[in-house]
Amino acid sequence: MDIPRASERLIIFDTTLRDGEQSPGASMTKEEKIRIARQLERLRVDVIEAGFAAASPGDFEAIRAIAAAVRESTVCSLSRANDRDIARAAEALAPAERKRIHTFIATSPLHMQMKLRMAPEQVLEQARLAVRFARQHTDDIEFSPEDGSRSEEDFLCRVLETVIAEGANTINFPDTVGYAVPELFGETIRRLRERIPNSDKAIWSVHCHNDLGLAVANSLAGVTIGGARQIECTINGLGERAGNTALEEVVMALRTRAAYFNLTCGIDTTQIVPASKMVSQITGFPVQPNKAVVGANAFAHASGIHQDGILKARETYEIMRAEDVGWTANKIVLGKLSGRNAFKARLQELGIELESEGEVNTAFARFKELADRKAEIFDEDIMALVSGEEREEGEHYRLVSLAQRSETGEPPHARVVFTMEGREVACEGTGDGPVDAIVNAIESQANSGAELVLFSINAISTGTQSQGEVTMRLSQAGRIVNGVGADPDIVVASAKAYLAGLNKLHSKERVNPQTERA
Amino acid sequence: MDIPRASERLIIFDTTLRDGEQSPGASMTKEEKIRIARQLERLRVDVIEAGFAAASPGDFEAIRAIAAAVRESTVCSLSRANDRDIARAAEALAPAERKRIHTFIATSPLHMQMKLRMAPEQVLEQARLAVRFARQHTDDIEFSPEDGSRSEEDFLCRVLETVIAEGANTINFPDTVGYAVPELFGETIRRLRERIPNSDKAIWSVHCHNDLGLAVANSLAGVTIGGARQIECTINGLGERAGNTALEEVVMALRTRAAYFNLTCGIDTTQIVPASKMVSQITGFPVQPNKAVVGANAFAHASGIHQDGILKARETYEIMRAEDVGWTANKIVLGKLSGRNAFKARLQELGIELESEGEVNTAFARFKELADRKAEIFDEDIMALVSGEEREEGEHYRLVSLAQRSETGEPPHARVVFTMEGREVACEGTGDGPVDAIVNAIESQANSGAELVLFSINAISTGTQSQGEVTMRLSQAGRIVNGVGADPDIVVASAKAYLAGLNKLHSKERVNPQTERA
Repeated sequence: MDIPRASERLIIFDTTLRDGEQSPGASMTKEEKIRIARQLERLRVDVIEAGFAAASPGDFEAIRAIAAAVRESTVCSLSRANDRDIARAAEALAPAERKRIHTFIATSPLHMQMKLRMAPEQVLEQARLAVRFARQHTDDIEFSPEDGSRSEEDFLCRVLETVIAEGANTINFPDTVGYAVPELFGETIRRLRERIPNSDKAIWSVHCHNDLGLAVANSLAGVTIGGARQIECTINGLGERAGNTALEEVVMALRTRAAYFNLTCGIDTTQIVPASKMVSQITGFPVQPNKAVVGANAFAHASGIHQDGILKARETYEIMRAEDVGWTANKIVLGKLSGRNAFKARLQELGIELESEGEVNTAFARFKELADRKAEIFDEDIMALVSGEEREEGEHYRLVSLAQRSETGEPPHARVVFTMEGREVACEGTGDGPVDAIVNAIESQANSGAELVLFSINAISTGTQSQGEVTMRLSQAGRIVNGVGADPDIVVASAKAYLAGLNKLHSKERVNPQTERA
Repeated sequence: MDIPRASERLIIFDTTLRDGEQSPGASMTKEEKIRIARQLERLRVDVIEAGFAAASPGDFEAIRAIAAAVRESTVCSLSRANDRDIARAAEALAPAERKRIHTFIATSPLHMQMKLRMAPEQVLEQARLAVRFARQHTDDIEFSPEDGSRSEEDFLCRVLETVIAEGANTINFPDTVGYAVPELFGETIRRLRERIPNSDKAIWSVHCHNDLGLAVANSLAGVTIGGARQIECTINGLGERAGNTALEEVVMALRTRAAYFNLTCGIDTTQIVPASKMVSQITGFPVQPNKAVVGANAFAHASGIHQDGILKARETYEIMRAEDVGWTANKIVLGKLSGRNAFKARLQELGIELESEGEVNTAFARFKELADRKAEIFDEDIMALVSGEEREEGEHYRLVSLAQRSETGEPPHARVVFTMEGREVACEGTGDGPVDAIVNAIESQANSGAELVLFSINAISTGTQSQGEVTMRLSQAGRIVNGVGADPDIVVASAKAYLAGLNKLHSKERVNPQTERA
């Protein structure tokens, strides 16, 4: 195999905040993105693609805030191959310790014709000028030929040789539509590297989608057969359609089969499960129980079910240890007698950083309030409580009180009191179920016209006494947001989730960019 | 590549009902298994592994019922390599039109020593005798060397040559612990086939697990590099830990990249999404939105969100058509004015077979009842309604009425009336939330001591007016069951789900076999 000696370390490039966020319904607020970026830094990813600066003012602000918050990882912005996009990316990245501009243009006949409506020579020239311009802002330039796996190879060689000559030092080969199969994908990259005279001046990268269930295998074939030394991936495999290569899978494959792959990466694997839970909670996208590495059943003994044989000789059925990827037993950490210091220490262990002592105090007050209603407080309860905390910044709508009754044979009825910009309003409604009644009641005053497109409830910890977490995905005039609410009472959690969704719709900071991707 | 000319058709062997059911929490009743088996037959899988006859009387009965119900697909039972297991398998399969016995024994040093506590020569002899005995019952014998990918190759060759000589005509090579990587896995099978003199007397098969996200790629490498012509898989990739190879992914990879793989299979791909929904509904395991092929976001235009460009030139981003895998628009099919014939016709279109006209009448009465409360009836509503119907056979507990109220600052309160063996009982309870109150109320009379280990609610169709489907996973003395309930009121659906779970725990027909697997 033709593997270069220079870089036996594999670079992990996470695009949860860019490609992952492009999933319909996965859009995030700036605060949520910063939380995830901090967790990615704890996970020690090499590069965090924080967004697409030119897509919207919200994306720009989020990248800028992440660039300021993250110190260890390189922060990257996507940008189309034009000066305006690149200038915006550079501006957003200005506060970063280490910054990368990732520029792309489509090179497949179909995309050039249908999407760009440009001739190949125009595309080549635009790629050259884009990289030249980007170099004025940073030395770390990544270039992607969009829909690379369906592009003509001769043309690809010309484009890639040109951009490397202009100073692109990472060449990313995307399988944008998830069409690749491992052997052919790896061989394509090997051939490109062999044919392009200056290919050794760049680190080669792969970006795969999972439409045929082959994203991890394609990424690894890009590395073993093709000689790539960067893998682009997302937490939980989040991403458009069937998503991207899952970070947790590719990292654990490399680690579990270390003798075969013979590559190292810098990931702290014990931060994988916390990262997975955070992304799932923020997006409202569940992780299915049989998801590799981060699913609830991925490790037999982590599912809470005793299985003979596994406990006797774990290696008979398990090739990884649950602790190594950050699974910990669902332990009781705190109760109503716990003090502020114990609470603060637990926040630190959970990797939660609150901005000020004032925020710690507010969170602690909520913790005490919860502990009065619930005997055992689990880590998950604390995370729910604190994330609710963070979400309250800039609240337009806030729940004051709720009374709801259901009786077989009668329509459920709800009375809701909530504030709109500080003004308290009371309303009533009926519906097919309690949630419908609550939504009808709130809408009688809020008149948002939002449509509920997804509704899911999960117990955060075990038992009926646990906090329920409700996710409501709302659609309004083409914008999709997720409202999340947590409470021991799922009816109350639903009201909180709906109001949280309305708060997101109300904030004008963010429009989900659905039209461009790499 | 060394691909035999004899069998360019690939055999699809589905083990949703055997390996899939071994997932913690995925155990199914006999009636649920029969429904899934019928759907697998509509999907045109070649072989349905219906269970493990010797594992429990419930498994035995389910296999026997499936053997009687299925006419087109071969029905298979797993069996350890001993006469008792094989005789039970043969007895359960007796009514089948086409039957297969699948016998296995571990061949890896670790498993032989730690689990079987047998010497290699004993294992070899037991494998030989098992296949010889199985041949007395059917000509269609599959043999699996458990943990094959960690077995010594010389020993494997001896075992496999021996069982082929005895008449095993399918040799299945399992990656039991999900440790394999594609190239090595495919090469191992190729070497085994080259080294074993009588290897051409059997069809070779692969059985992969997804612990490292590589199940689909390993299965395909087993086919392209190794020359296997059977793939074992499950709907939604259900199965222990990270699950098995997903049927929908491997089938759509073969079809989408037909020119590369050059193999045909008999699957009717338009039945994939209905099968996925049925398995998800019965097990209560959600399918994550970014799951390939069957996830809600897998096809951008099926997610209900308009995306510019996709609609203009679909092939710019999509390599499969949603219709080809059975995604249909979420259309309004029926309302309160629809008649019995329209209802019956729709049931047929949905592939739902009710046993008698009496059952159709009962379902139609429930449909009218639902239509009174809900303006638009979607396909999903009908499926929920009919599956509720089927679950009522042999009901021990049944909901009569429910009144519940929640008010901020007061503990939620529930009054539940339900029947226990025909006797009506009324009870009251309070709790942290309405569901907790309901469970406490019911438990005050039922005293099951069941522990709630998972609670999830999903809207079956869009909007708050839609029916909510609640899944409650209950654990009692080591048994795990899922109770599912559907109702426009999620509080009522929760009460139904809890009682459905108690009904399952009450039925003694089924103990989940957690100790053996292949």
